[in-house]
Amino acid sequence: MGSVNSIDPRTGAAVETVADETTEEQVRDACARAAAVAPRLSALAPAARADLLEAMAAGLDAERERLVPLADRESAMGVARLDGELTRTINQLRLFASVLRDGAYLEVIVDHATGASPDLRRMLIPLGPVAVFGASNFPFAFSAAGGDTASALAAGCPVIVKAHGAHPALDAAVTRILRAVAAEHGLEDAIDIVFGRAAARALVQDPIVQAVGFTGSESAGRMLMDLAAARPQPIPVYAEMGSLNPLVVSPAASENAEVGTTVAESVLLGAGQFCTKPGVVFVPAGDAGDRVVATIAERLEAAPSAFLLSAAIRDSFVAHADGVAGAPHATALVRPEAGEGSSVTPGLSEVDAVNLNDPALLTECFGPAALIVRYETAADLQAALRQTPASLTLSLFAEADEDTFVADLLLLAQDSVGRVIFGGVPTGVAVTWSQNHAGPYPASAGGMFTSVGATAVRRFQRPIAYQAVPDALLPPALREDNPLRVPRRVDGVLEVAAR
Amino acid sequence: MGSVNSIDPRTGAAVETVADETTEEQVRDACARAAAVAPRLSALAPAARADLLEAMAAGLDAERERLVPLADRESAMGVARLDGELTRTINQLRLFASVLRDGAYLEVIVDHATGASPDLRRMLIPLGPVAVFGASNFPFAFSAAGGDTASALAAGCPVIVKAHGAHPALDAAVTRILRAVAAEHGLEDAIDIVFGRAAARALVQDPIVQAVGFTGSESAGRMLMDLAAARPQPIPVYAEMGSLNPLVVSPAASENAEVGTTVAESVLLGAGQFCTKPGVVFVPAGDAGDRVVATIAERLEAAPSAFLLSAAIRDSFVAHADGVAGAPHATALVRPEAGEGSSVTPGLSEVDAVNLNDPALLTECFGPAALIVRYETAADLQAALRQTPASLTLSLFAEADEDTFVADLLLLAQDSVGRVIFGGVPTGVAVTWSQNHAGPYPASAGGMFTSVGATAVRRFQRPIAYQAVPDALLPPALREDNPLRVPRRVDGVLEVAAR
Repeated sequence: MGSVNSIDPRTGAAVETVADETTEEQVRDACARAAAVAPRLSALAPAARADLLEAMAAGLDAERERLVPLADRESAMGVARLDGELTRTINQLRLFASVLRDGAYLEVIVDHATGASPDLRRMLIPLGPVAVFGASNFPFAFSAAGGDTASALAAGCPVIVKAHGAHPALDAAVTRILRAVAAEHGLEDAIDIVFGRAAARALVQDPIVQAVGFTGSESAGRMLMDLAAARPQPIPVYAEMGSLNPLVVSPAASENAEVGTTVAESVLLGAGQFCTKPGVVFVPAGDAGDRVVATIAERLEAAPSAFLLSAAIRDSFVAHADGVAGAPHATALVRPEAGEGSSVTPGLSEVDAVNLNDPALLTECFGPAALIVRYETAADLQAALRQTPASLTLSLFAEADEDTFVADLLLLAQDSVGRVIFGGVPTGVAVTWSQNHAGPYPASAGGMFTSVGATAVRRFQRPIAYQAVPDALLPPALREDNPLRVPRRVDGVLEVAAR
Repeated sequence: MGSVNSIDPRTGAAVETVADETTEEQVRDACARAAAVAPRLSALAPAARADLLEAMAAGLDAERERLVPLADRESAMGVARLDGELTRTINQLRLFASVLRDGAYLEVIVDHATGASPDLRRMLIPLGPVAVFGASNFPFAFSAAGGDTASALAAGCPVIVKAHGAHPALDAAVTRILRAVAAEHGLEDAIDIVFGRAAARALVQDPIVQAVGFTGSESAGRMLMDLAAARPQPIPVYAEMGSLNPLVVSPAASENAEVGTTVAESVLLGAGQFCTKPGVVFVPAGDAGDRVVATIAERLEAAPSAFLLSAAIRDSFVAHADGVAGAPHATALVRPEAGEGSSVTPGLSEVDAVNLNDPALLTECFGPAALIVRYETAADLQAALRQTPASLTLSLFAEADEDTFVADLLLLAQDSVGRVIFGGVPTGVAVTWSQNHAGPYPASAGGMFTSVGATAVRRFQRPIAYQAVPDALLPPALREDNPLRVPRRVDGVLEVAAR
């Protein structure tokens, strides 16, 4: 097997060798260790698992001075952005700790025996070991210690991380920290890491692995989905694959001088490397719309070059932007240029809504670029939006008196996106109880579950029911006196226990 | 295209022609009609959708005198059993009406804006049109008006039923009743029906269909899962595929003279044609166990012949029972015999736990047969249970002082079944809030969701979040004043609204 190198995208140089590629036998061993620790992780009381997550959060925070520069060296994202991302990652672990202490995530339902039916008690239990494939563009928040790992551990599932090729040294360092914390709780194998493509495939195919979390491209996500669906025992793949994230500027909003600047900043944020970047921006035809487009174009034209995550991403960005600019009905407004290392300048093209139906235009372009789509009427706009593949988000800049215009788009959103943003940009995904970061395929694997926010934990749980089982033998959450004080539905009535 | 005939399993005769096989073009049209009605069904207030379900329940009840004999003529199950099953089906529709009136199924979460994050409100919305494949063995409760249909309609999803080949006339009659009720609510296309194998395939592949509910064999279920996973847009298949349903008699319970009779009655119930029939019965070695086995054998030997659902099912039952009896280490205790029409007498075989690891023994046998597995030690029992494929249920007959014996089996159940029954048989699946009718693959597609009970509705919903959307434009369930009075989590705190 080969070695796994850590590359500096600013220079393209291999800086260090992180590890040997993991052999298939080593993957099997890692899975066996995960299976061995699973019952103990599952049996931990929710509060004890919350302690574990909080200790992991503290463990990462304690190593901030070492982790942030390492992440910057592997991603060229800049220490300010990465410092914030690490904070977000730490807070995410803490959110799941609070989800555990709350207890509603167990979804306990108790039905006492009646003349017609037996005593029956239901709760959610962990699925089993989970494979996590992190993202290049969020080396902390969607990687080794990211949302998939945090929610899987919260559910009580051991995690095996597949190190990302763009930041293997960081993934290794983060996993080492989490393993050390877990070891202090006697649960060292609650998290582990493997390296290389062959290991990735073996991991998804291992019968011990019961679910996969993934953040990345549609092509890689679909490959994992297909691999998982073809197993003797198919397993779910929770793939978050990014999207075009349509952003609509209404006729009234196009009169607002600030909208163009706001949109341009969202396109440029993080060098456009967000899965929620607004990739298609719908602007009304006419003078006001022209001014919005001119503002966006000026802003992108003036932006300095920025490093993308890798030379491969830079090449694919430039090729994609050229493809859009060269599409039959499209016009290039700002042409991207490749600079030193993996750096590029932004790109912007324009097309009329009636000509949007071209696959070259309706594919995500990862990097600082967007497509302006000009619409004449609300009907043209809606038709164009219906042609746009399902997305994570739909953003609407509109005024309060445009009720019908907005209501029609909100209805359309119910078929096509996971989050609607009013008067704001889609970049920035708050980690909260209510967050939904998912969308119908191909934005995510199926849109049934979010990968960000408290309810992400449900992806790694399944229900089990106990019929007429003596109280002392029941899991604590199901016992009659509710020793864990979890919210429960009892005989059809939802009850919030006093804490 | 050919015609679809209704067969009488008591005679094997084709009694009537129900319909022509649905053409692919007709399937496309049905899907288009479902897509057209979907937004109106989704926009109905939960209470209005509850009214619709209750009207459907009443509509079926009003036609009981016609439906039950028709079901008996197509299934040979007997009017008493079928009358009860229709009542169950009606009650199931009413349970989902109460789920709608409760409102918690919307899983509303509201996070008000803070300095760090925007106002964000999340709820579940319908997935879109659903295809339902019913079961031969539950012509009412798991068919055209069964749990999949009831929960999909409750979620707000139009349903297209694929008529079952074993009871097409009943499916057609039931669908006609539901359509007529829906038409009175201006929603005729909320339910429709198609006939034939080509139509089934076209239905699962139609881009409008967003999920599939299925109850039946593992081979047919897996075929649908594979078809759905290979679509350009993969969709979930909620397949409930039946299982071996291990039943354990502990050493102490084997001293109880009634256990053998109870087990035998469960094996014989409904001619053994339940997905929860105990297919493998673990009995301790020794005299007490011998007496349990003798009781079961006597009871099965004495049972009259019973009609199976079709001649094909009878043939496969006899072949399967012969295969088990002829396995290298197995002994036939009761040999099944085929009688007139689709009738058979029961079968029973026996094997030692250490010899259970034989695929011929570990496959579901649909009909009145079981395999007795004799174990020497608790370790032998657990090893044999670990070889048994995942099941819907695990039943334990044990005494209160066998704590360790039971606790070990309950732990094992967390990896392998969806419901644990203590001191009772698995047949009989109460339709309640807490029910879980699912298990890890191959008992069901993935075990993530139940197909029976209140939470079945979650299969046909996906989350959506609204960020900073003005209150008047929000769906009612998310508005600040909570006009629907649904339970919600607000700023992290679960709140049950006063009704």
